[in-house]
Amino acid sequence: MAFFVPVAAAAWQAENGAMAANDHLYLWLALGTGVIGLVAALLFARGVLSSDAGTPEMQRISNAIREGAEAFMKRQYSTIAMIAIALAIVLFIGYRLSSFTAPYANKVVVSFLIGAACSALSGQTGMWVSIRANIRTAAAARTSMGQALKIALHGGAVTGLVVVALSLIGVGTLFLLFGGFSNPQQVPYQLVGFGFGASLVALFAQLGGGIYTKAADVGADLVGKVEAGIPEDDPRNPAVIADLVGDNVGDCAGRGADIFESTAAENVGAMILGAALYPVFGLRGILFPLIVQAINLIASIVGVSVVHSREDEDPMHALNKGYYVTSLLALVGFAVAIYFMLGARWWLLGSGICGIVTSFLFVRITEYYTETRFKPVQSIAQASTTGPATNIIQGLAVGMETPALPVIVISAALLLSYYFGTRGLADVTTINSYAKGIYGTAIATMGMLSSAAYILAMDTFGPITDNAGGIIEMSDQPHSVRVKTDKLDAAGNTTKALTKGYAIGSASLAAFLLFSAYLATVHDIVHQRVTAAGGVLPEGWTFSNVNLASVPVFVGALLGAMLTYLFSSMAIRAVGRAAQTVIQDVHEQFRNNPGIMQGTSLPDYGRCVRIVTGAALKEMVLPGVLAVAMPLCVGLIFRHFGGEFYPGALHNWPMINGVPVNLSGAEAVAALLMVGTISGILLAMLMNNGGGAWDNAKKLIETGAHGGKRSEAHKAAVVGDTVGDPFKDTAGPSLHVLIKLLATVTLVLAPLFL
Amino acid sequence: MAFFVPVAAAAWQAENGAMAANDHLYLWLALGTGVIGLVAALLFARGVLSSDAGTPEMQRISNAIREGAEAFMKRQYSTIAMIAIALAIVLFIGYRLSSFTAPYANKVVVSFLIGAACSALSGQTGMWVSIRANIRTAAAARTSMGQALKIALHGGAVTGLVVVALSLIGVGTLFLLFGGFSNPQQVPYQLVGFGFGASLVALFAQLGGGIYTKAADVGADLVGKVEAGIPEDDPRNPAVIADLVGDNVGDCAGRGADIFESTAAENVGAMILGAALYPVFGLRGILFPLIVQAINLIASIVGVSVVHSREDEDPMHALNKGYYVTSLLALVGFAVAIYFMLGARWWLLGSGICGIVTSFLFVRITEYYTETRFKPVQSIAQASTTGPATNIIQGLAVGMETPALPVIVISAALLLSYYFGTRGLADVTTINSYAKGIYGTAIATMGMLSSAAYILAMDTFGPITDNAGGIIEMSDQPHSVRVKTDKLDAAGNTTKALTKGYAIGSASLAAFLLFSAYLATVHDIVHQRVTAAGGVLPEGWTFSNVNLASVPVFVGALLGAMLTYLFSSMAIRAVGRAAQTVIQDVHEQFRNNPGIMQGTSLPDYGRCVRIVTGAALKEMVLPGVLAVAMPLCVGLIFRHFGGEFYPGALHNWPMINGVPVNLSGAEAVAALLMVGTISGILLAMLMNNGGGAWDNAKKLIETGAHGGKRSEAHKAAVVGDTVGDPFKDTAGPSLHVLIKLLATVTLVLAPLFL
Repeated sequence: MAFFVPVAAAAWQAENGAMAANDHLYLWLALGTGVIGLVAALLFARGVLSSDAGTPEMQRISNAIREGAEAFMKRQYSTIAMIAIALAIVLFIGYRLSSFTAPYANKVVVSFLIGAACSALSGQTGMWVSIRANIRTAAAARTSMGQALKIALHGGAVTGLVVVALSLIGVGTLFLLFGGFSNPQQVPYQLVGFGFGASLVALFAQLGGGIYTKAADVGADLVGKVEAGIPEDDPRNPAVIADLVGDNVGDCAGRGADIFESTAAENVGAMILGAALYPVFGLRGILFPLIVQAINLIASIVGVSVVHSREDEDPMHALNKGYYVTSLLALVGFAVAIYFMLGARWWLLGSGICGIVTSFLFVRITEYYTETRFKPVQSIAQASTTGPATNIIQGLAVGMETPALPVIVISAALLLSYYFGTRGLADVTTINSYAKGIYGTAIATMGMLSSAAYILAMDTFGPITDNAGGIIEMSDQPHSVRVKTDKLDAAGNTTKALTKGYAIGSASLAAFLLFSAYLATVHDIVHQRVTAAGGVLPEGWTFSNVNLASVPVFVGALLGAMLTYLFSSMAIRAVGRAAQTVIQDVHEQFRNNPGIMQGTSLPDYGRCVRIVTGAALKEMVLPGVLAVAMPLCVGLIFRHFGGEFYPGALHNWPMINGVPVNLSGAEAVAALLMVGTISGILLAMLMNNGGGAWDNAKKLIETGAHGGKRSEAHKAAVVGDTVGDPFKDTAGPSLHVLIKLLATVTLVLAPLFL
Repeated sequence: MAFFVPVAAAAWQAENGAMAANDHLYLWLALGTGVIGLVAALLFARGVLSSDAGTPEMQRISNAIREGAEAFMKRQYSTIAMIAIALAIVLFIGYRLSSFTAPYANKVVVSFLIGAACSALSGQTGMWVSIRANIRTAAAARTSMGQALKIALHGGAVTGLVVVALSLIGVGTLFLLFGGFSNPQQVPYQLVGFGFGASLVALFAQLGGGIYTKAADVGADLVGKVEAGIPEDDPRNPAVIADLVGDNVGDCAGRGADIFESTAAENVGAMILGAALYPVFGLRGILFPLIVQAINLIASIVGVSVVHSREDEDPMHALNKGYYVTSLLALVGFAVAIYFMLGARWWLLGSGICGIVTSFLFVRITEYYTETRFKPVQSIAQASTTGPATNIIQGLAVGMETPALPVIVISAALLLSYYFGTRGLADVTTINSYAKGIYGTAIATMGMLSSAAYILAMDTFGPITDNAGGIIEMSDQPHSVRVKTDKLDAAGNTTKALTKGYAIGSASLAAFLLFSAYLATVHDIVHQRVTAAGGVLPEGWTFSNVNLASVPVFVGALLGAMLTYLFSSMAIRAVGRAAQTVIQDVHEQFRNNPGIMQGTSLPDYGRCVRIVTGAALKEMVLPGVLAVAMPLCVGLIFRHFGGEFYPGALHNWPMINGVPVNLSGAEAVAALLMVGTISGILLAMLMNNGGGAWDNAKKLIETGAHGGKRSEAHKAAVVGDTVGDPFKDTAGPSLHVLIKLLATVTLVLAPLFL
């Protein structure tokens, strides 16, 4: 897909020759900072590993978790690797079929595989540290909560830094290898495979992990708490280790892959849009997103380092302080980068601020809907007093209300950052105002993601503290220690909920960016084909019309929205089926070994882990394949049969030898992507926030409201919490990833739809 | 909005002068058939009223229901009338503000008020008969089930026929009064007010009725069945009459208004598209939709008349037979109409068949997802054995799966009917292929609605038999009678579920039709303004690009999807709040009058009815206002501030004095309409089918599966059923109406967005 405009590029080169050489430095700077990020991650990891690793009893439990998690990850990544290789072959063949795309087949496949590998590597590394940080957090909690918080956050920081650094180094290195310095406008298009590889791994990691974690959780709860009447995390429950493993593979590995995908897709998408601005900024506009990621790394390292907590302080205060420091540093870095790279166009800083403010507001809105001190959760707790039905109805009503404010925020952010983009580039005459505005929205996305590493550290903090609490519980530590880990665990639950808000916010903004990149890609493919056939594009023609009034586009839109529902349905059912296998196994273990319940013999934790591993991996395949296959099918079908459906006269239409170019496939896929994204965002918010609110309504009652534990209201609230679990931990987060996968898969497959 | 193309019209008139006079006959034929429909309704009503009206005890109960329903309707329509008058004033002022729209202010307001009045009248008439048919059905059930079925169906037929006939007569008369014979291309645009009036009344009727029925139902169940442990429809429950009233005002009046809106909106929309085909078909193309409605009336009268049921037969067999007869007659009528009016273009019959087949498939898919003999309902019943949480999870998973097949059916129907449209008009050179295809989809919509009167009769059959069952139960009739009414009630539940599938199917198809009408309207407004300013439209320009890549359009799309979620959340919460008032009142009555539970004194049914009436009417205002206000605000905001956001160069753009016409408002509203429709269709399917499946899963268990009544599984299934109630009877059906309201409100307000 080499579609650059050689004339403009040459003109720019001639004018700015001296500057261009300097600009290479920016790439080296970004790559260097990526390495610094990895080194910092290494130092944090060493700090964590050198801490006290607790009693042998605690180690026994921690080792069981570690082994389970590692066994799952190994099998999961083997499955994903097979799917990725199969897709790589399909991609290669698909690209080889047409003479237009054949020259890019190798590059696309290589970048796809490297993207997939980097994503897998960052997931693995994060996991590796997290399952070692949990026991050290638990051990530290015996003496100091401040120290425990530090270990947990530093463990999380390893994930955050590795994810962002690997994404930066991966994209930067590919840009270099594919000859970005000599063909700067062409190479960004060749990096789309990287984003697709990352998305594919992320989808399966999130789906598999999400199914695993909730199947184990629901299964363990149903047989343990409900049937056998033993408390959570009781060592007599054969599924308890599987449950703790789930926290790692679902929350930690899944979210890591999710954010990796966000930063990778955003980098590539923003570089493509930067290529469109080549006449204005040259190489700097293309490298700007990488520099922003470098700033993100530095700001997050500082942010993590400043977090210190006094013993009696709410852990959230300390974590929030780090977040504010990171955001502030990122903002300063942003301003400096705009000064040096984008010619001090301060309106563009306004776009960046839009992004930063959006991420703040998303986090705050999520807080409002999911925390016990606000009305929504309280209304669910209140509704629990009249039974499970009213609890569910109220929870769903709250969930359906949650998209309203975020949609208004996103709308305002898009409109404002677009406007700032047009103002910031008002003096430029070589590009149209649409490209200017869209670059503004891209900068807003970069702003939003400029604290991603810290956010991810906070997020991974959640499963680490959750596990630490489990280890403390299972190893019979004194009550005073449990109080500390409970506090940390509560903070971890909050950070998990908030970062989900952040993830969906960044997915929404990034979606628009990637959609624009898709349009740019299609435009350039059409340009190349028409030019190759000796024709010229009609004056003023852009592939920026995705016309909802055209039947294929409307059908694509319908199918895109439907995909999000079907996908969610499949994910939720998968949890149910996988949970059944857990329940069966636990029943069997109880029956065959009565000593388990008497506490005289240990259950076979490993068997349960193996069973849920197998079930989760089996279940993740179908929804995952659906997500990839549907855009492909829609694009190919309308490519072949869509010619009948052109709206209106084919006025001003690109022609090859007098025959209009059939754009139906590309248009239908664009609508599928866009409306699928809108529907997916709303559904994900419904499920994430509804699930979070149910969870905390239960917790609110457990603190004594409406009769406290063991009251009828509590029973009703437990029902809501159980319903919310697959919502907020499987289907919701998988939808984030689906949205981004749709964006990257359409980018990569675009040439096949034309 | 007088935007016809005088040249083409004059040419056509000159060529076809002799034929044109003949064509007037079609309007008289349609109006005459409308009158026949009303006469038939009168005859059916007389037949029902002349039947035995049962024992005094039964009449006492029936009178209480009647009084409650009439009191509700009276207060509801007073509230709606005030809102309608307020809106009429706003409309009038809005239209008077600009010199372009001022000439049409009177016509729009008059047609708006007539549409609202016809809708209210048809709702009232249907109700009037239904609340008299229920007691006569109950009385007949004491001797003959066949006779009872007939009375219930004939009672329902009154609603069906009145709704379709009034819609036909209303649109036809306005066409005549506004001078349709002399300005045939201009007048259809002036009828949009009629559709808007109908939608507005429908929205509030459905919302108010839906909130009432479920608030009374949930309230009565929670205090009666759950707290006091008395059976359903027990006369000791003070809310029992309110519950029975609810069946009438929610299901019966609500669905009547819904289908009235469908046929009205479809008539007007199809006439607008017919106006675009004036060069081909002349007046006939414009009057064709009215003739199809006339066919609908005749076919449905015959269909209702042939229904006879043997005593031991499943009532559904007899009802289905009538449906098949109606569909077949409608098909034949369709063919005849195409032969005489559309020049025997048989491809267009293909489009009509697409619509008829779509309605069949929608009904069958709904059946699959909501009936006990199929897997989805069985899986929910199975999941109930592990408690309410798994019941809810499975129900939601089923609900989320339900849109998949209908979306594929709608997609295929749109593509095929579009294709048939282009084939059927292939020889016509004066209009572009898009207009041909869109006319094909319009014919599919007409096909789908060509059995609407019969469907509506079947639908209203539901609440009549439901009420009859309640009357039998409350008046202590022998068990053998209860068995008969139970059978009828079961058939009524099925027809209610199936017609909901039909309603959403027709809403989806009609949405595309109305969207096309909106685009045609905007195009003509722009044409008029540019021409008035002395300019000319660029060659080939059509307002058929609603560009998802443009930020205002994307924001409009996001807001449209969000609206459906927020609206649903509000509707569901409204039920909860209104139910609370019922519960409080019943508690109070039990406390103040202990004789009620001992059966020694009667509760104050009327007080409960009054309380829930007040609560439901208060609750319906906010979501209703939101639905009207949101498109208005989006259109006005982007009209004023949208100029910054044009994508690309303004190539080929309509200009007035060198300034590009600002289309952002019209485009953003188009996206709001379209994506709001997509999101609304999917959400409505989730809620309707999920709710229906939960309901029948409970019934399946009650027939003995998984332990039968009073088992733990049954308790869990009751939770699911209660959650499903506000889904399937309040939020879901209100979403149907919302979708069509969005379409008509945008049509009417279009001139204000430019």
